[in-house]
Amino acid sequence: MNANALSPRGIVLFAHGARDARWAEPFERLAAKLRALSGSGTQVSLAYLELMTPDLAGAVAAQVAAGCTSITVVPVFFGQGGHVRRDLPLAIDACRAAHPHVDIRGTVPVGEDDAVLDALAAYCLRQLS
Amino acid sequence: MNANALSPRGIVLFAHGARDARWAEPFERLAAKLRALSGSGTQVSLAYLELMTPDLAGAVAAQVAAGCTSITVVPVFFGQGGHVRRDLPLAIDACRAAHPHVDIRGTVPVGEDDAVLDALAAYCLRQLS
Repeated sequence: MNANALSPRGIVLFAHGARDARWAEPFERLAAKLRALSGSGTQVSLAYLELMTPDLAGAVAAQVAAGCTSITVVPVFFGQGGHVRRDLPLAIDACRAAHPHVDIRGTVPVGEDDAVLDALAAYCLRQLS
Repeated sequence: MNANALSPRGIVLFAHGARDARWAEPFERLAAKLRALSGSGTQVSLAYLELMTPDLAGAVAAQVAAGCTSITVVPVFFGQGGHVRRDLPLAIDACRAAHPHVDIRGTVPVGEDDAVLDALAAYCLRQLS
């Protein structure tokens, strides 16, 4: 690691997880797109609530070990149920307690974004034609 | 109902469901966008795998009752786990058996679509700036 480099920033894509390994494929494609777009100064990781690894604590610890001092956690969920409203804030609080010198913040879930909903609507429309 | 009108087509947005009623908000926004885009000849409905109503059978029966002879079921899921690979095909088969004169087909989930993933990646990038 180049000690003179600016600290990398981290982004963690937080998803639900599933028993079937193939479930993670779209998230892996999303992470690859994000790596291509965000450049070498950004660490992009996946983390899962359950059934897959790493969990949020593991993904954040790895980004901290890589030198990140600022980490953004994006919930890749459509709706805001208990996982986003209750489980994720608790997990983020635990990460902050473990890494008090690191700025860790969560965003609203992707499903709240109007441009994301527009892309979903466009996909649905294409299925009708 | 105007017997001379063309049969409406149906689209059912199939989502997981959750205990928290607020969870459904993005799906309701998506349905509203789709209604605005697709016009009066298209019936747009939501259906849920569990914890919310209607289920797929109920949503399809309502569209058939409204005169739809062609129904497209879009899984609003990111990943393809057991719900999409196993539960949904069974539910679609049951709908076909209940309505043998109706063309009912399922599409690949929204999370497989490259433009949807691009919109997700763009959202994630905006969270970093």
